[in-house]
Amino acid sequence: MKVLVSEVGPRDGLQSISTIMPTEAKKRWITALADAGVQEIEVGSFVPAKLLPQLGDTAELVAHARRIPGLTVAVLVPNMKGAEAAVAAGAHKLTIPVSCSETHSLRNVRRSHAQMLDEARCISELIRTLPAAQRPHFEGGLSTAFGCTLEGAVPERRVVELAEALIACGCDEVGLSDTSGYADPAQVRRLLRAVWGAVGRDRLTGLHLHNTRGLGLANALAALDLGISTLDASQGGLGGCPFAPGASGNIVTEDLVFMLQAMGFETGIDFQSLLAARALLAAALPNEPLYGMVPLAGLPLNFEPTS
Amino acid sequence: MKVLVSEVGPRDGLQSISTIMPTEAKKRWITALADAGVQEIEVGSFVPAKLLPQLGDTAELVAHARRIPGLTVAVLVPNMKGAEAAVAAGAHKLTIPVSCSETHSLRNVRRSHAQMLDEARCISELIRTLPAAQRPHFEGGLSTAFGCTLEGAVPERRVVELAEALIACGCDEVGLSDTSGYADPAQVRRLLRAVWGAVGRDRLTGLHLHNTRGLGLANALAALDLGISTLDASQGGLGGCPFAPGASGNIVTEDLVFMLQAMGFETGIDFQSLLAARALLAAALPNEPLYGMVPLAGLPLNFEPTS
Repeated sequence: MKVLVSEVGPRDGLQSISTIMPTEAKKRWITALADAGVQEIEVGSFVPAKLLPQLGDTAELVAHARRIPGLTVAVLVPNMKGAEAAVAAGAHKLTIPVSCSETHSLRNVRRSHAQMLDEARCISELIRTLPAAQRPHFEGGLSTAFGCTLEGAVPERRVVELAEALIACGCDEVGLSDTSGYADPAQVRRLLRAVWGAVGRDRLTGLHLHNTRGLGLANALAALDLGISTLDASQGGLGGCPFAPGASGNIVTEDLVFMLQAMGFETGIDFQSLLAARALLAAALPNEPLYGMVPLAGLPLNFEPTS
Repeated sequence: MKVLVSEVGPRDGLQSISTIMPTEAKKRWITALADAGVQEIEVGSFVPAKLLPQLGDTAELVAHARRIPGLTVAVLVPNMKGAEAAVAAGAHKLTIPVSCSETHSLRNVRRSHAQMLDEARCISELIRTLPAAQRPHFEGGLSTAFGCTLEGAVPERRVVELAEALIACGCDEVGLSDTSGYADPAQVRRLLRAVWGAVGRDRLTGLHLHNTRGLGLANALAALDLGISTLDASQGGLGGCPFAPGASGNIVTEDLVFMLQAMGFETGIDFQSLLAARALLAAALPNEPLYGMVPLAGLPLNFEPTS
């Protein structure tokens, strides 16, 4: 079975650190990731550069990444204005993050659920005005779906209702994000089944997991067991380390790819080339700690991917 | 469902570091772990003190731990001589480690598989000479069951054959150990089913996992899904860090307990008291790094165990 590993390091990773990675280094890193076989990369976010200067070159990165054959170029768009910029740049996939915790939504983007659904509706209308061949895939990313550092537990019913609402607003699909690293494997299975029951399996194919409490790959396994086919991950677990060494943000691409290959899933990714991309990243950000256990321990002796 | 978290830090953790933890500090730590609700602790190993001075006080620790009501006191015994000492000390559970990689066995204890099976047979005969009420539980621990840093892949057939041989030699049960941190979730499931098929489910209830490549909790989940009821873990992921920060040895007790509690398994363990035990450990070993993501990140806001 194929699993799509969607690399979110250039967006989720780089937005979490204060260092601004030079645009040319980002381009080399993105190219190296694609060379390693990564088939989808979230290259940035169309937010005002004064809010997130780390991602101020997103349009240029989209233009660069679009020239890489076979690569799906994804971006985050917090609102209609971001979506217009993303469409103008030619991104293949747009994700609007909608926080299931309204407290978090108001704090993060200063918008209520109703306002975010309006944004999603406007963006889907914009996309429908485009010629069919130019229409990007449009995802509603349900952040804090597994709990919120401000609200605590998030009711599953609310996640399901927001998923239904986003599909009704014209999203092609929804994704579930464990923004706070609160998810556990049983919850992953419950929530996937609940959302699938409401919107259908083809409307939810991807999961965005963090490893804040060490359960990232266990949660990934729980989802893989149910047939999830896309998993976000960040090379070097870059960013998202508000606590201490080891407390990485997103699940680490290298460790996820090792797990998938060992289990016999097809990723299309070459592990050694992935390490070459990691080396570029490390060289470009010499003061940022990179995470990942397999890069430290090495592959098992004589390791061969099962698939 | 109940899951027994068997704490192996005092043995597997302390044997992996060069610092010798004072006996009184070990006693306080063991008591604190038991106070937190840990029901089984591997307190040491009956090996010659000149080989492992860190564990030279195992007899005294067994005597101490036996006085804690309800606690199962486990020890490692590499051979007949160690078993005699363990029986004399009054340990409740003896585990003889038998490496599925004969290369590793010869390197580690200078004994072939045939010699180790002889040891197991002698130990089970010793145990049978004891009055029924004093007989310790006797486990054959199949180390390197998921692969070996010297041999690479270990054939599953060999693990199954050794499991059958150990039961034939009089072991009450066998355990599977991922000594090298090579296991993946699919392999865990395959091997559990294979060994269960050969010796029966009641002859294999426990798994000893390492987190060397970050898959420790995913492997634990894979086993829990099949109904495994005992998981070894080490507080603070103590020891087993030959590589670099973050590369813990055993799976971390704190993170495992969080996962189990979040999923609704009954552990009998109180998380805050577990952190109190961790504080004792940290104070006794100020120069040793302790691992674990939940201790860094904290429990989720308003977290309540599901069970």
